[in-house]
Amino acid sequence: MTETTAFPAAWLGDLAPGGAAGLFNSAVAAFAVATAWEVGALDVLDDGSRLDIPGFCAARDLHVPSVRSMFAALASVGVVVREGDAVVAGPEFAEVHRAKAFFHWLTIGCGELFANMPRIVRNSGRTGEFFRRDAAAIGFACRDINRQAFDPVFAEALAGLDFPVRKVADLGCGSGGRLVQLARRFPGVRGVGVDIAPAVLRSANQHAEAEGFGGRFEFVEADVRALGPEPRFAGVELLTCFMMGHDFWPRERCVATLRMLRAAFPDVRRFLLGDTARLEGVPDREKPVFTLAFETAHDLMGVDLPTLAQWEGVFAESGWRLLRARPVEVPAASVIYELG
Amino acid sequence: MTETTAFPAAWLGDLAPGGAAGLFNSAVAAFAVATAWEVGALDVLDDGSRLDIPGFCAARDLHVPSVRSMFAALASVGVVVREGDAVVAGPEFAEVHRAKAFFHWLTIGCGELFANMPRIVRNSGRTGEFFRRDAAAIGFACRDINRQAFDPVFAEALAGLDFPVRKVADLGCGSGGRLVQLARRFPGVRGVGVDIAPAVLRSANQHAEAEGFGGRFEFVEADVRALGPEPRFAGVELLTCFMMGHDFWPRERCVATLRMLRAAFPDVRRFLLGDTARLEGVPDREKPVFTLAFETAHDLMGVDLPTLAQWEGVFAESGWRLLRARPVEVPAASVIYELG
Repeated sequence: MTETTAFPAAWLGDLAPGGAAGLFNSAVAAFAVATAWEVGALDVLDDGSRLDIPGFCAARDLHVPSVRSMFAALASVGVVVREGDAVVAGPEFAEVHRAKAFFHWLTIGCGELFANMPRIVRNSGRTGEFFRRDAAAIGFACRDINRQAFDPVFAEALAGLDFPVRKVADLGCGSGGRLVQLARRFPGVRGVGVDIAPAVLRSANQHAEAEGFGGRFEFVEADVRALGPEPRFAGVELLTCFMMGHDFWPRERCVATLRMLRAAFPDVRRFLLGDTARLEGVPDREKPVFTLAFETAHDLMGVDLPTLAQWEGVFAESGWRLLRARPVEVPAASVIYELG
Repeated sequence: MTETTAFPAAWLGDLAPGGAAGLFNSAVAAFAVATAWEVGALDVLDDGSRLDIPGFCAARDLHVPSVRSMFAALASVGVVVREGDAVVAGPEFAEVHRAKAFFHWLTIGCGELFANMPRIVRNSGRTGEFFRRDAAAIGFACRDINRQAFDPVFAEALAGLDFPVRKVADLGCGSGGRLVQLARRFPGVRGVGVDIAPAVLRSANQHAEAEGFGGRFEFVEADVRALGPEPRFAGVELLTCFMMGHDFWPRERCVATLRMLRAAFPDVRRFLLGDTARLEGVPDREKPVFTLAFETAHDLMGVDLPTLAQWEGVFAESGWRLLRARPVEVPAASVIYELG
């Protein structure tokens, strides 16, 4: 500092765990984690490399002062360690790197939703289109969440099937990633992808063709909650639906939707339903990563997330038999239900 | 939980300080602190009251599930403690409550800026109007920051003046709060408020009249960085300028601006310049509250914040004598310079 201005003790942060400075810096760091992931900094540091800020920015055409601040935020909570412009992974790197998609989902995908929280918690602020999220950013994060969290458990569930799968239907198929997985797993399989978004269906079709499965899938533009029997659904033996089941709720509507799916897909032998539920029975101070943001975002949006107990109380009434529930480790309260 | 679904250990968070879950939950809590402040929850809890969520929401017409999530986020990091719908202040409450305006500045005032961080760190994403902030929210937070941080030190500086103040000018006067303070402190004082925003000047005029000082102040719509001598500035003995000095920079332009102010206010005897600078000499793991967000936001916006050392290196060259620097405790690197 300078001779002139004294340096009060208060200008050093009290980083007692949970202290205001630690809490505040963690919030800044959360945006920095998502940013560092998108610009490729986490990948560079993950293989133990020492990153030089000016060189990294030059190679990627990034704004040096902004990137310095990004690393300062990460360093403030131990995700990285800085010596001048040299950056290496810090003590918290590995755990935060595994969870990077959840930070991105919160700060970028749902950043505008949360930035409007003071308005949205007021009933008077909840009229019309009262919130916005970044769908592209959420898709970006969810691909990583699926790959890390659901795909391994999904593969186990498929491996455990006791019949040859010849025709599948993926409900809420998005850009077709899951259908392509299924086509790889079951040579010769045919399938149907259902989604409400035409743009997404076009890219799903292109994706299937690009992966060499052109013509193997039909894509149906429809609301999964309002399907009926139709020729394209005939012969579907395996039904999959991931990350959208909570939209079937509240309970009465969920029971009706599950019944309707029974009728719309008369030949189905197994229904793999993967979703994240509201977490119960965890003390406030022990909430795992993602849970708080996932539940708060849906409360803000007015979506009443079911608990696992609530899920497991609707299957019988809906004409489905719960054969097995395969828990997914992260995010918490995630599961793949095998229904028959 | 249910009989059916096992409860993996991973569904309990590892809240080791700095661990991913603690970091993540702190980010959600930061939005909740700002929200709890705006809806009045912090005030209720601050006087030791026990808050009942449904009753609190009914009295204020708030959305109960969203407010429950808000308190869950605060409870996850110890700002509050919940028993069902009963909420009391937690171990971290006092410190976080003092810092509430900084959380609001980050998550609400600058929420959209930070949510666009992955784009803005790319040079290709920095063209045109490449960022947006919530000016009203920033004003809301800054009023509290001024009241808690700058006003007490400002009062000391005024008390130390060794001449009777008859005419003042406040540069960047905003909605006139500081001019009214000065009018209360110096009976009979007259003054000029300069600001670039006409809307703000109108509310400043109304504020002055409402406070009983109608006709005592003239309001000048102008860019503080481009003023010249004029009759309305004649006789101004005390010049004040708060929270905008960093906009005078880079250095060469700052020197020119300070020189210009010397010329525009020929009768000035004291210039009280209050601002927050870039903090130097603090280790990454000891950054105090606000500093990281303030510096990151300005780096993202392309504003090169000066350090205190840089500030103190321009006065002499600009024709001003630095009589005293009064440090402000929070936010760090904040100071009121007394120039003669």
